[in-house]
Amino acid sequence: MNTPLVCRMLGQICLLITAAMVFSLPWAFPWLGETARFEAHGLLAMLGAGLVSASLAVVLLYLGRKSVGQTLYRKEAMAVVGLSWLLATVLGALPYLFSGTCVGRDERGNPRPMSLVDAVFESASGFSGTGASVLTDVEDPALIPRCVLFWRSETHFLGGLGIMVLFVAILGFGSAGKALMITEVPALTRGSAYALSQHAAWAFAGIFIGLNAILTVVLILLGMRPFEALCHAFGTVATGGFSTRNASIGAFNSVPIEMVTVLFMFLGCTNFALLYFLVLFQPKKLFNDPEFRVYALTLLVAIAVTMTAGLWYGDFAELLSAFRYSAFQVTSILTNTGFATEDFDRWNGLGRGLLLVLMFIGGCAGSTSCSIKIIRHMLLWKILALDLEKAFRPSIVRHIRLGGRVLEEPELRPQVLVYFALILVICLVSWLVLIAVEPDENWLPSGVQAIATEPGAKKPGIAATYVSEHSYVRTKLLDCASAVAATINGVGPGLGVVGPTRSYTSLHWISKLVLTALMLLGRLEVYPILVLLMPRFWWRK
Amino acid sequence: MNTPLVCRMLGQICLLITAAMVFSLPWAFPWLGETARFEAHGLLAMLGAGLVSASLAVVLLYLGRKSVGQTLYRKEAMAVVGLSWLLATVLGALPYLFSGTCVGRDERGNPRPMSLVDAVFESASGFSGTGASVLTDVEDPALIPRCVLFWRSETHFLGGLGIMVLFVAILGFGSAGKALMITEVPALTRGSAYALSQHAAWAFAGIFIGLNAILTVVLILLGMRPFEALCHAFGTVATGGFSTRNASIGAFNSVPIEMVTVLFMFLGCTNFALLYFLVLFQPKKLFNDPEFRVYALTLLVAIAVTMTAGLWYGDFAELLSAFRYSAFQVTSILTNTGFATEDFDRWNGLGRGLLLVLMFIGGCAGSTSCSIKIIRHMLLWKILALDLEKAFRPSIVRHIRLGGRVLEEPELRPQVLVYFALILVICLVSWLVLIAVEPDENWLPSGVQAIATEPGAKKPGIAATYVSEHSYVRTKLLDCASAVAATINGVGPGLGVVGPTRSYTSLHWISKLVLTALMLLGRLEVYPILVLLMPRFWWRK
Repeated sequence: MNTPLVCRMLGQICLLITAAMVFSLPWAFPWLGETARFEAHGLLAMLGAGLVSASLAVVLLYLGRKSVGQTLYRKEAMAVVGLSWLLATVLGALPYLFSGTCVGRDERGNPRPMSLVDAVFESASGFSGTGASVLTDVEDPALIPRCVLFWRSETHFLGGLGIMVLFVAILGFGSAGKALMITEVPALTRGSAYALSQHAAWAFAGIFIGLNAILTVVLILLGMRPFEALCHAFGTVATGGFSTRNASIGAFNSVPIEMVTVLFMFLGCTNFALLYFLVLFQPKKLFNDPEFRVYALTLLVAIAVTMTAGLWYGDFAELLSAFRYSAFQVTSILTNTGFATEDFDRWNGLGRGLLLVLMFIGGCAGSTSCSIKIIRHMLLWKILALDLEKAFRPSIVRHIRLGGRVLEEPELRPQVLVYFALILVICLVSWLVLIAVEPDENWLPSGVQAIATEPGAKKPGIAATYVSEHSYVRTKLLDCASAVAATINGVGPGLGVVGPTRSYTSLHWISKLVLTALMLLGRLEVYPILVLLMPRFWWRK
Repeated sequence: MNTPLVCRMLGQICLLITAAMVFSLPWAFPWLGETARFEAHGLLAMLGAGLVSASLAVVLLYLGRKSVGQTLYRKEAMAVVGLSWLLATVLGALPYLFSGTCVGRDERGNPRPMSLVDAVFESASGFSGTGASVLTDVEDPALIPRCVLFWRSETHFLGGLGIMVLFVAILGFGSAGKALMITEVPALTRGSAYALSQHAAWAFAGIFIGLNAILTVVLILLGMRPFEALCHAFGTVATGGFSTRNASIGAFNSVPIEMVTVLFMFLGCTNFALLYFLVLFQPKKLFNDPEFRVYALTLLVAIAVTMTAGLWYGDFAELLSAFRYSAFQVTSILTNTGFATEDFDRWNGLGRGLLLVLMFIGGCAGSTSCSIKIIRHMLLWKILALDLEKAFRPSIVRHIRLGGRVLEEPELRPQVLVYFALILVICLVSWLVLIAVEPDENWLPSGVQAIATEPGAKKPGIAATYVSEHSYVRTKLLDCASAVAATINGVGPGLGVVGPTRSYTSLHWISKLVLTALMLLGRLEVYPILVLLMPRFWWRK
């Protein structure tokens, strides 16, 4: 392990985070119109966090001073990617803690400050582009200062930028996308791999920042204040999902804003290499890309099914509003953003089940999408079809084709399969932990809950009736599963107690830690985090 | 495709089924003590079904008369296995239809006869060793004649025998177990593959019949009538789950019967090659087998967790009853039997979630277990661990070891992974179909349901309140998932509307067909059924 080089790169990331923290300072002042009075504690918290970040940057850059010009190998790159998200998560939690941000108010109206776990959860949710929140009220400046709220959205921007530059460009799209990167983007493959990475990193960063800038301007034109426009642009392009309103995008109740958001969520989940060609006025590359086609088709089919089911069960009043809410919600979930314009947790069973499945699909490789991604699903489908044929013709040799090209790295098939298996195992284990640590009583309605949680009162009286009649516990199993799905796939809101009108506040701290880990694992496609936990990764050369 | 050979083998299977039908005839007569009066319609139904089966046997044997002495290749073997279960399912449904068996009574007490789909479902459930039932009352001879009830349990015996002889011995344990069969059982590998199959088939059939015989005698000694002892032996050793009582094994309320059943469910899910060594007085082979050890350990850990959680939430009154119910229920689910001594659907969330996970684990390869099986989980674990190491050391070459032996067919890794992926995809698609065709209203309590299903009344009044307060639809998603899990893994009862005290009657006929397909797919480890659907399987040589 080339420790100095890793330190130097992490130091640079700390510098970037410091700079971002400075950017959120202006919102503490009344003259920007976001806060009525000067937010002293918010400003101090941001300054304090910036100071810690800057000091760490100095230390790390000093430790890595001798590594200038050294080459980044795969192992170091993985370490940098994994460690940078851990580092960012810790640094990103500081503003919440220093400012005494509160998750909400208890029954008596007293503010409840965030715990250490809450702050780490919120920070990981931001950097991973998840958008799952423990905050129940973000509109009250007494609970969270505006500059800290801006920082919250800024973590989406930083996380998205990091994904495009560090993960997609340097690690090469993660495991499955690597083959694609080279086959799909011939213009980028000229020159060495290093030059390619450098070129791609700049190009992707440029597109990412450009999309954010355009969306901000459009949202301002559609009537948002600059503060809200910036925050929602950060949440949209990075497919994050943090909003400045408790009712998310739904609070604006504006069809133009919703449709523009849909467009930019869609773009944020499109392969950035294809967007690069779009910028070069080569739209054919985009529309001929097999992954993009399946992505667009999946979206349209899912919207159609959701509309039909919703109209059938009377969730939508009429066709136009069915389209409006379905298009927004399906895009938001498929792209793993997590914005809401409706409480989709109250939709019919098919609609809710479909959203749960869409969480695991996601957008294109090489985008800010967080989930398993379209390309892996396409490859899985082809692998399974080939395998079935092999079952009765063992001697057959066929290659996997994608858009007419043979796609055959020897390790591609097992890699895709292993990735699905890893996600499955991680989800299953996390789900078991959640259902073990979350007390069943939390799933009783509040009236019954009080009786059931009395000492020694195990399912007697009202509680027992309620249990037998309405089987409350069953809700727990699905709610926990949706929490796992919504975090590992970077969506944010799930179903039931973690639904779009609720928050992750009520969960046990162990659950929150597990979900924090899931957000980071999902964001970085598992490996860069998991290898950090393997002693052999550090010991051997 | 060697059609005559396939016909001849299917003809032999028809003969076996005819013989089995004849065996159930005596129970129609009062002098065996099972029925108060002579069951004319039951006897005629069984005779009619036997006649159809015998005629089909004659036709098939005639068509295949020229194939005597020809060799069975893999492709033909797959066709025979797949077709024989389809054939048995159709023939097995006839007695239900001919006798006018009823699923239960409606609110006015009128018997409701089985539909065609119901009969096929019940028959597939029997032959696949699932034990999922559409019958709500099996104790009333007016609803189902005793001889047909005996036939119902006999389908378990035939299915189990078929698995041991056709599937395990001839197809060689299915995909993953093939490698094991050869490495684990050196005594059996002497001689040609064909001789091996023949030897194994006789040995396994002998052990299977022997276990059934011993259990029947033991159950009679413990106080069961011969009829019930036979039926429960069939349901236990084949890990099926059909009972002659509505409350399953719980109806006997006898600790000895429960513990004996636990033992034989456990044995039924042990690798029969190891039981063969046990018969040869070589118990060391059994206890040194890595899969058997993990199997036993999984069982013990699951029982311990279930006991702890159940005691914590007050599901069990004290330690002894906690052990009694946990041991029975966990064994029943892990071995995919599906007997019940308690309504485990009313357990705490962790207990119910754990049972759901255990459904996907199952017993050892080479047993009557139906699910994914321990060995595949062990291999998956090793594959994932190796893969993680590869992520940062791409040049590493390691072999998969099991119990000290290198286990490395080149195709083993992708095969195991593909199997998991197939199961996952099949489960997901089936789940989506179920939640699409099942109406949400079925998950409302009966009082609210009447209001909600009135024409034009979409979620108004009481229903709307109920929906918002108790989120009934969420129960649907989990219940449907449990139905899928319980059928593809051959368990039987699931959670909620398909829980241990309920039945599959209330489901939509499309759901029943999907679940019927899942039972057969799960029983035959997917391939022998799926390839039948591929045109290429039939076209080419």
